[in-house]
Amino acid sequence: MAADPPSSSANAPGAAPGLADIRDAAARIAHHAVATPVLRSRSLDALAGAELFFKCENLQRVGAFKFRGACNAVFALDDARAARGVVTQSSGNHGAAVALACRLRGIPAHVVVPDNAPAVKLAAIRAFGARVVACAPTMAARDAAAAEVLAETGGALVHPFDDPRVIAGQATATLELLAQAPGLDVVMAPVSGGGLLSGTAIAARALQPGIEVLGAEPAGAADAHASLERGERVTGMPADTVCDGLRAQLSPLTFAILRRHVDGILLADDAATLAAMRLLWERLKLVVEPSAAVPLAALLAAPARFAGRRVGIILSGGNLDLDRLPWPIPNPAFPC
Amino acid sequence: MAADPPSSSANAPGAAPGLADIRDAAARIAHHAVATPVLRSRSLDALAGAELFFKCENLQRVGAFKFRGACNAVFALDDARAARGVVTQSSGNHGAAVALACRLRGIPAHVVVPDNAPAVKLAAIRAFGARVVACAPTMAARDAAAAEVLAETGGALVHPFDDPRVIAGQATATLELLAQAPGLDVVMAPVSGGGLLSGTAIAARALQPGIEVLGAEPAGAADAHASLERGERVTGMPADTVCDGLRAQLSPLTFAILRRHVDGILLADDAATLAAMRLLWERLKLVVEPSAAVPLAALLAAPARFAGRRVGIILSGGNLDLDRLPWPIPNPAFPC
Repeated sequence: MAADPPSSSANAPGAAPGLADIRDAAARIAHHAVATPVLRSRSLDALAGAELFFKCENLQRVGAFKFRGACNAVFALDDARAARGVVTQSSGNHGAAVALACRLRGIPAHVVVPDNAPAVKLAAIRAFGARVVACAPTMAARDAAAAEVLAETGGALVHPFDDPRVIAGQATATLELLAQAPGLDVVMAPVSGGGLLSGTAIAARALQPGIEVLGAEPAGAADAHASLERGERVTGMPADTVCDGLRAQLSPLTFAILRRHVDGILLADDAATLAAMRLLWERLKLVVEPSAAVPLAALLAAPARFAGRRVGIILSGGNLDLDRLPWPIPNPAFPC
Repeated sequence: MAADPPSSSANAPGAAPGLADIRDAAARIAHHAVATPVLRSRSLDALAGAELFFKCENLQRVGAFKFRGACNAVFALDDARAARGVVTQSSGNHGAAVALACRLRGIPAHVVVPDNAPAVKLAAIRAFGARVVACAPTMAARDAAAAEVLAETGGALVHPFDDPRVIAGQATATLELLAQAPGLDVVMAPVSGGGLLSGTAIAARALQPGIEVLGAEPAGAADAHASLERGERVTGMPADTVCDGLRAQLSPLTFAILRRHVDGILLADDAATLAAMRLLWERLKLVVEPSAAVPLAALLAAPARFAGRRVGIILSGGNLDLDRLPWPIPNPAFPC
């Protein structure tokens, strides 16, 4: 384990949230977020040789855990700040989550998206009442567009993961999971920018210090794995994966949290992830997106590591284009 | 409403079960069946202009409500009878449900299936340890094969719906639903042979006499609708529908129960059913089979009837071939 990252319960930007912040977040979002169920499958348990507890964030509002963090960040703003609105960059689940959270608070939302984003995603963000600000599809253009909207509005930036309020919000899923499934040996979550895994790790370690905390990452976008291996944050790696929600890179804050609290990051290639996604559809009867299947794929590839253990898995989301499913794919054809 | 059907709590074959039988069934299957969750969707509520409560029997064991009835019937057998095994006819969810229930009780199961049934379904039945008895794909051949196995084994027949123990088992879903979603104005279930709808109606009427009980049936297999309209059981209608679980016809017992307890049967054509199925995948993030989507399809086609009401809907199952999905289909593209 590494040196302590910045840690504080004062909720200042840049500092890791603590358990008190997570409990505050849970109280703050309780009226808006869904307390999602934990589902199980005897056939998946038999297949894995372990006891699996699936925390169904695909059943969260906007169809992903992202609503927890966005909701906490938006409702944590003081009234004067909130009145000037919120700015974010995301064409995915975080953009929709910020849009919905702002609508619920009754404040403006400005979502910067690349001009090549799918029309259906922009429509979803607009349907929640947010203003969509299109820009060229480069990081520099997105940063410039966001800076411009921030300057113009005086609004608050709610980053998808590099924000302790967002991390505290994502952590509330694990707060619930540990109460719903007592005595877990392991908790697993996918990792992209690291907001979900950071929150998962902080909550799990605080409440159950002996628990093992594992991330799961696509082999084709393994910057978090590489960062923890090398002990320094790796950036600039190309991302080549079907998991459209897992292409971001760690921030200094999430890297520091993962270094301190996470026991390892397992990898899964896209074929294994799609097979695991199909198993989740077939056995759990849940629609999950590819990104959500990475932990199960990684677990099934390492049966000895998990044999007989009680494993909590955060199913991160369920948003995908039903007209472009990755079928047919190999079907292991195990009985129900 | 019509004359009373046979009614008894003695659980004799041919008599309608009563609330006491349903409570007995709930206790009998409690250790084996899943107490399935009730899920909601704000966007589906907005679309319907009603409050919808989905009872998720797709999350039941074997992926369908059928396990409740099969489990109750199998565990209700006395030991001597049970030891001689159970016989049924079904290549679908009921066959798998009987197979699993018998495995759990540790007794033989013999499932008569037409020899043109999909190999994957036979594999599922065999995987639960049942003996598959293939026969020609005609009703006469199935009856003959079942009679032969019954004579040969002295086993007990567990019919898919024409059995009060099966009806009482299916009714336990509604027992749970009414406790999970208090104050429902309406409860809806799909109808095929009528076992689920009979159980739904008996439980709902007994516990909440003022509730409206509605069936939903494919327009292409509308024998139950025709039977209630004419006041006599209509048989021999051809079934032309994508809903493979809804092609059976009422028995004298289920017809009598529906006549007494059901307020109406609504119809949905296959296009509406598939659109509703897609909505359930997209908004509820649940994998449901076409048969399970018929009630939502019928409800969305009659908005005035349901405006502002609290409606419980039994999502009957989630078993379908993921390699043969009916996509692309028209997507209403409402926001989440």
